[in-house]
Amino acid sequence: MERSSESKLRVRYAETDQMGVVYYSNYLVWMEIGRTDFCLMTGFRYSAMEAEDGVMIAVAEANCRYRRPARYDDEIVVQTSLTTLKRRTMTFSYEIRNIASGEVLADGFTTHVSIGRDGRPCTLPPKQFGFLSEFVT
Amino acid sequence: MERSSESKLRVRYAETDQMGVVYYSNYLVWMEIGRTDFCLMTGFRYSAMEAEDGVMIAVAEANCRYRRPARYDDEIVVQTSLTTLKRRTMTFSYEIRNIASGEVLADGFTTHVSIGRDGRPCTLPPKQFGFLSEFVT
Amino acid sequence: MERSSESKLRVRYAETDQMGVVYYSNYLVWMEIGRTDFCLMTGFRYSAMEAEDGVMIAVAEANCRYRRPARYDDEIVVQTSLTTLKRRTMTFSYEIRNIASGEVLADGFTTHVSIGRDGRPCTLPPKQFGFLSEFVT
Amino acid sequence: MERSSESKLRVRYAETDQMGVVYYSNYLVWMEIGRTDFCLMTGFRYSAMEAEDGVMIAVAEANCRYRRPARYDDEIVVQTSLTTLKRRTMTFSYEIRNIASGEVLADGFTTHVSIGRDGRPCTLPPKQFGFLSEFVT
Repeated sequence: MERSSESKLRVRYAETDQMGVVYYSNYLVWMEIGRTDFCLMTGFRYSAMEAEDGVMIAVAEANCRYRRPARYDDEIVVQTSLTTLKRRTMTFSYEIRNIASGEVLADGFTTHVSIGRDGRPCTLPPKQFGFLSEFVT
Repeated sequence: MERSSESKLRVRYAETDQMGVVYYSNYLVWMEIGRTDFCLMTGFRYSAMEAEDGVMIAVAEANCRYRRPARYDDEIVVQTSLTTLKRRTMTFSYEIRNIASGEVLADGFTTHVSIGRDGRPCTLPPKQFGFLSEFVT
Repeated sequence: MERSSESKLRVRYAETDQMGVVYYSNYLVWMEIGRTDFCLMTGFRYSAMEAEDGVMIAVAEANCRYRRPARYDDEIVVQTSLTTLKRRTMTFSYEIRNIASGEVLADGFTTHVSIGRDGRPCTLPPKQFGFLSEFVT
Repeated sequence: MERSSESKLRVRYAETDQMGVVYYSNYLVWMEIGRTDFCLMTGFRYSAMEAEDGVMIAVAEANCRYRRPARYDDEIVVQTSLTTLKRRTMTFSYEIRNIASGEVLADGFTTHVSIGRDGRPCTLPPKQFGFLSEFVT
């Protein structure tokens, strides 16, 4: 069974900066796209959990190592895996590659805490926890 | 009495694109900064109206004419005025200038509709309408 | 022959604001994605023209009318057509729809001027002009 | 002598997301504002180095720990210090606080490599290295 997800995207002009490469904060946007697709793969949509259970997932830490630049119009793939899953926290890992060259452009991780409508940490809904637990690497 | 507001900002690296100038959608972000400051000048904070009255102001139309490029680290001023005010709609006009050269970089307008918590158009709260009505150009 | 292009995208979390809908400047980013795909359809890639001919296309005006909000995770289609083409200028028109509901979320246009490496207006390279001229609506 | 810089900013509406707080990638944009101001404080402007020496500073790694959310209209201060300086690399550290409450919202670091016009790592221009070396914490 495949335990990581792949998200493809094409670099937008808006994502470049005057150095001619993708501005560094945009990699975190791409990681979020990776997380969304990863969660979809496991069986739930993040947007539904936020609307139905009132549980949101806040970012506690983000880390990215930049290895090679991404450029306008490049085809990119974000490979996402779930490396840690606890009742209230989880860690996703990412590898961002240029599809044409196969080169790794960046890698990193994000850790998250589930929080309720009151803004305080809470345990993940059991159903959602179950979905994710099948896919821990 | 001064009827327009001035908002100063410095161009961020993140706002440039690979053409070496500010990416065109960012001017709309600057217009929103102009609107925020304009409203502050008239006596209310938009964030308070959204929180207390449950009234939000949605954008109905935005227009921008780009005359000269803005570049990284440029000091910019957004001059904002309120050119139309009705019970449910209003139009702001903007002139965006380079402070050092005095040149106009862009101008434009945005029109807005006030909407309630149900997402439907509603009249502006009388207090807020009063604040703004003093400053129509 | 199809004279308009269609670009599909899914709304990113990063594109929402605290009103729970897509922030208004992001529609201009989507229009740029529409332009890119439109140009691809006609036979050239904008990135190649910028690199090989040294000709860039600057935005002279942008306009967007917002009709209904777009929300996180919505599937969106940007339909782009070329409504005016002159030697130095062109106008693209856009219709942005929610794919699931078919509703029009926004429409608008952008006008553009071709500029050379010196930053001054220039005529479009004949090859590129030819590509585009086949697709004027 | 003050060895860290402070950059003040007000949270933009565009920076919020539908969770009602600042979207996580924007903290990296704020860190870049902190770096810009830090460098200004030491005696050079990054934009000048890029234009005159052809030396750019690429990001090699970014890390951010998110402690409390930032919200629309909050007044924020980014405190930036230079914690490591070598011939080709440097590390900046950041603390991002809410001015009104004094609370730390986030902290993190970025590491950088100086690169020349050919895109390869190079040593920092001696003048710039000198400016910075006075301010290492």
